[in-house]
Amino acid sequence: MNNWKKNVRKVVPYTPGEQPQCRNIIKLNTNENPYPPSPKVFEVIKKFDSDMLKKYSDPSAGMLVDSLAEFHGVGRDMVFVGVGSDDVLGMAFMTFFCSEKPIFFPDITYSFYDVWAELFKIPYEVKALDEDFKIRKEDYLFDNGGIVIANPNAPTSIEMKASDIEEIVAANPDSVVVIDEAYTDFGSETVLPLVERYDNLLVVRTFSKSRSMAGMRIGYAVGQPEIIKAMNDVKNSYNSYTMSHLAILSGAASVKDKQYFQETLERVIRTREKYAGKLKELGFSMPDSSTNFLFATHESVPAEEIFNRLRDKNIYIRYFKKPRIDNYIRISVGTDEEMERLVEALKEILS
Amino acid sequence: MNNWKKNVRKVVPYTPGEQPQCRNIIKLNTNENPYPPSPKVFEVIKKFDSDMLKKYSDPSAGMLVDSLAEFHGVGRDMVFVGVGSDDVLGMAFMTFFCSEKPIFFPDITYSFYDVWAELFKIPYEVKALDEDFKIRKEDYLFDNGGIVIANPNAPTSIEMKASDIEEIVAANPDSVVVIDEAYTDFGSETVLPLVERYDNLLVVRTFSKSRSMAGMRIGYAVGQPEIIKAMNDVKNSYNSYTMSHLAILSGAASVKDKQYFQETLERVIRTREKYAGKLKELGFSMPDSSTNFLFATHESVPAEEIFNRLRDKNIYIRYFKKPRIDNYIRISVGTDEEMERLVEALKEILS
Repeated sequence: MNNWKKNVRKVVPYTPGEQPQCRNIIKLNTNENPYPPSPKVFEVIKKFDSDMLKKYSDPSAGMLVDSLAEFHGVGRDMVFVGVGSDDVLGMAFMTFFCSEKPIFFPDITYSFYDVWAELFKIPYEVKALDEDFKIRKEDYLFDNGGIVIANPNAPTSIEMKASDIEEIVAANPDSVVVIDEAYTDFGSETVLPLVERYDNLLVVRTFSKSRSMAGMRIGYAVGQPEIIKAMNDVKNSYNSYTMSHLAILSGAASVKDKQYFQETLERVIRTREKYAGKLKELGFSMPDSSTNFLFATHESVPAEEIFNRLRDKNIYIRYFKKPRIDNYIRISVGTDEEMERLVEALKEILS
Repeated sequence: MNNWKKNVRKVVPYTPGEQPQCRNIIKLNTNENPYPPSPKVFEVIKKFDSDMLKKYSDPSAGMLVDSLAEFHGVGRDMVFVGVGSDDVLGMAFMTFFCSEKPIFFPDITYSFYDVWAELFKIPYEVKALDEDFKIRKEDYLFDNGGIVIANPNAPTSIEMKASDIEEIVAANPDSVVVIDEAYTDFGSETVLPLVERYDNLLVVRTFSKSRSMAGMRIGYAVGQPEIIKAMNDVKNSYNSYTMSHLAILSGAASVKDKQYFQETLERVIRTREKYAGKLKELGFSMPDSSTNFLFATHESVPAEEIFNRLRDKNIYIRYFKKPRIDNYIRISVGTDEEMERLVEALKEILS
């Protein structure tokens, strides 16, 4: 063996949710939105002048940043954009978690947090959720090198109260607290307004769920100018031109179409509530979801069996073979029609 | 001051070339291609079904990888793709340069290499170019933690012989040798075929120059399956979904249009040769360029003055206020019309 292999970075392998490429399936496994993006996004792409591609895109992605600043009522120096929220979160880990002290996050949460910590050699401690899968705020009041909390949490779908998060942020002035609000548009209380009061709070959002743009790769973060500048400095020292012309233009178009955004959210929430009820009738129980997915366990049939048997019927959901949650399935909220077919399939499996 | 600022990663600021957004300028400062991308790219974008955006893109970017594998006659497990070659190179630094020994690169070269080394805390030593701005292969035959060489080099435009690079690669079986071939399509000899023989060679390319797609953000690397797998493991542990649907589809369309690619290269090279001659008539001297830019110094007027006075005339070129090269300007090769306007402006400035 050549010795160059000794100097290769050791990483924990991460397995993303399956992206089966065939058409004849129902895909409820990666929390995508079942509805298309805003018609304004279609327009922008149709009208795009490909001749522009020969030039670099704006490294500050000004048009997209401005639209988000206007949407949230913050300054344009308070918004950072990246290639999906994974890029934004990874950049936040790299930028802010350079202490010798461990960072804290829940034991059951988004599965990239420990992967990034390993990648950037950041010490970390996981904090166990309580028996109802809720985050215990008391766990985050001890000395640490940083905090990251998904709210609502995934894959549990459970929301933490904004006042509890504020308590954590206020108790940790020497740490950056990252709140990953990937799912907050589906009904949880955002802590975004708190960035005005706390310079150590960073709120991260994505276009992949509520804005139906997973395939365009856009995420962003909101915080005070100083925290945003620190991220931009690191980003610019790595890759100045991350956002393509099309991501900038179509992202801005999506943000400006507030009405379509609101209507789509309402449709997803209506379907979620309707089918949470139907699943309960089939013997499932689940926490109240503040997201676009349901985290459910069945009274008699093991989760893994349900997962496999649905897969045989070309219905993809997510199953995590992990301690504490290995009898739960995570079902993304699809269209009513998709959810109806899911219920029919479940009836067959459970009968 | 809150202590979270103490734990922020310290970075060397990087200043990208200016991207003035107004239309009425001649932009010869960031080595973009003056011609549009292949008409096949226009078609793919026009026909794109935006409904697709609601789903995540293929994390393996299979269609783009396959087109590049076919183009270069290598296996699909020998190609890594990323968000521009900066993303690919940064990922290579993070993946392969984890030794305690310093990595080597030239003192005058692409300005991101030292920035990435600082970012990832990689020790490095720069090796001085000789008095003709050529890379001295002897400097790279000592024990090291890795090597990165841009060939042709930037901003010098000078090519190193492929046989010299092979000697470096062969002499360093315990290091990964990264050859950044951003400009090779414009006429230098590629070392890409050497990947079949050396498992420690990684060849990096970009769509931003020869393929006129700077604004789409696509770069790639070719190497043996083992070296590519190591990069994919790190990439997947950071951000699995980096390439948008549109980058995958339009990138593949560009690669398949070999004829347009060849014609565009020939046009740029013809213009380069023609205007190298005209600049010499104006009192400039420059090395032979194997790239889409000219690295020139004038016999009497200081480079910085030329840079500033062109800027006043809305013609943007690049000037690096750095030791050894602070009397040189770098001029990207534009269309004949743009180059003619440059020559006219230079005549005024030099008269």
